[in-house]
Amino acid sequence: MSRAHVTYPTEAVTLREVGLRDGLQMVARFPPTGAKDEWLRLAAAAGVRHFEVGSFLPAKAMPQFADVSDIIGVCDGLGLHSAALALNERGVEDALQTPVSEIVTVVSATEEHSQANARRAREDAIALIRRTVDLARASETAPLVQVGISMAFGCSIAGEVDPDEVVRVAAHCAEAGADLIGLADTVGFAGPTQISDLVTQVQREIGDIVLSIHLHDTRGMGMANASAALDAGVRVIDGSIGGLGGCPFAPGATGNVVFEDLVFLCERKGFETSIDLEKLMAVRGIATSEMPEEQLYGALARAGAPRQINWRA
Amino acid sequence: MSRAHVTYPTEAVTLREVGLRDGLQMVARFPPTGAKDEWLRLAAAAGVRHFEVGSFLPAKAMPQFADVSDIIGVCDGLGLHSAALALNERGVEDALQTPVSEIVTVVSATEEHSQANARRAREDAIALIRRTVDLARASETAPLVQVGISMAFGCSIAGEVDPDEVVRVAAHCAEAGADLIGLADTVGFAGPTQISDLVTQVQREIGDIVLSIHLHDTRGMGMANASAALDAGVRVIDGSIGGLGGCPFAPGATGNVVFEDLVFLCERKGFETSIDLEKLMAVRGIATSEMPEEQLYGALARAGAPRQINWRA
Repeated sequence: MSRAHVTYPTEAVTLREVGLRDGLQMVARFPPTGAKDEWLRLAAAAGVRHFEVGSFLPAKAMPQFADVSDIIGVCDGLGLHSAALALNERGVEDALQTPVSEIVTVVSATEEHSQANARRAREDAIALIRRTVDLARASETAPLVQVGISMAFGCSIAGEVDPDEVVRVAAHCAEAGADLIGLADTVGFAGPTQISDLVTQVQREIGDIVLSIHLHDTRGMGMANASAALDAGVRVIDGSIGGLGGCPFAPGATGNVVFEDLVFLCERKGFETSIDLEKLMAVRGIATSEMPEEQLYGALARAGAPRQINWRA
Repeated sequence: MSRAHVTYPTEAVTLREVGLRDGLQMVARFPPTGAKDEWLRLAAAAGVRHFEVGSFLPAKAMPQFADVSDIIGVCDGLGLHSAALALNERGVEDALQTPVSEIVTVVSATEEHSQANARRAREDAIALIRRTVDLARASETAPLVQVGISMAFGCSIAGEVDPDEVVRVAAHCAEAGADLIGLADTVGFAGPTQISDLVTQVQREIGDIVLSIHLHDTRGMGMANASAALDAGVRVIDGSIGGLGGCPFAPGATGNVVFEDLVFLCERKGFETSIDLEKLMAVRGIATSEMPEEQLYGALARAGAPRQINWRA
């Protein structure tokens, strides 16, 4: 069993709350450190254990993540699993000065998107993953390294993405030593069939490396796609409170798949989440008060969980 | 092959737009006949062929359906398949005076809901189905008869519903001569597993009688449940434009699963719908202008279909 399987046990579903990272990527206003701290405490009190909390980038470019080290410290203090993005070697070095549990790196599924978005070849992104893995393993805290493959189900620039191409990219990520590989439907092009087919192909290629899925609800397929991913064997799913998190490549799009609704989906599909939905709703309160201009989504927030049946796994 | 299979061919998916019936069940204001006429024409121009358009009930009780015969006439003129509810013998007789293509009757999955909602035993509902089938078959127009089994996945009153009980109710509907049996997640309690399990059990019981599914998106599971239904072999799915249609048993709930998003789901799953999404958006315009206080839902309306890929089946 790999080290990643200790954090993400194969027999259970892990829901990762990414609101403080992907959810803040595009916002006009963002919560101060104290409110992020409260976000984590309330979510933890509801039973959430895995978070993506920020990005190691120059604070000038992304002020919303200037406090990422502090937030990682909060997670550490609360015994929560913290993940944070590092998109260059400087970022990785900064991350390794913190007790971060997992460093997240990114590679585009297509060369076109890699060049347009990160101004680098996918090959260079893979080289950085290798370097990140080496640095992480040599470090004292030895965080896990996740690679997110963006645009895995279709690309805002290149259009159709050949699944075989994604499998090849995933193979390179595996070779580079990734502990976790994430497939991202960055612009919400996928339907359940695409999820199911690609998950199956990639998992076959990467063996027992943990596969996670990152879905955007741009075209309303979020829950159907999450359900298909679970059916295909995925056990790690990203989501954000209230579906927070637009996408720079899809104007007018909604954000991540709604975390609260994922809890209901998983429970109805027989996977225990140990997450208390009513308590979780308190986290939405922070999003509403700190970012009043952001639209929050979510059916459970509106309708509540059924009281007449036992909907838990 | 049964007569219902001519209307609902087994090899294709049929999406039924129920906005003018279920969508108007609870609204404060409703479109006048001319706007309903336009609704049908625009939806037909987008490629929709199957509609549920009203209910044969005293106009005093339900003024929104007072023009149901006229609307059925519009469908007839346009060559569209029209379905309408008839919940008592008087309603059935009235329906048979029109060229309606399908009469929809209802039975509750639970005795408790049947008594509370319709003030009758399920046995009496089944007797009415038998009578409806007899009258329909003896009539000149010989419409199909659908039975919708409400609360099939959990009941607002009785709570948990034993799937075996639903199978028994479905067997009675089949015996009574139903051409089509619909399973309704009236209050949005189901997840994909519940859909898949019950659909499989009921289809096994009712043989080649057409099985349809009617989903409410109350807890955000609409698309995931529709996807599970398709996987389990269902080929007839209800939805309403903009997700119109609250539920009297679930305050604060959203309505039906969004018809426009169902089109995207089906196409991404490899089922051709022959429905033009852009043209379909015009129907939302009618909903907005005629019922400005109703909240419309739908991701395709917000984000549009992907332009960069061929998302069609």
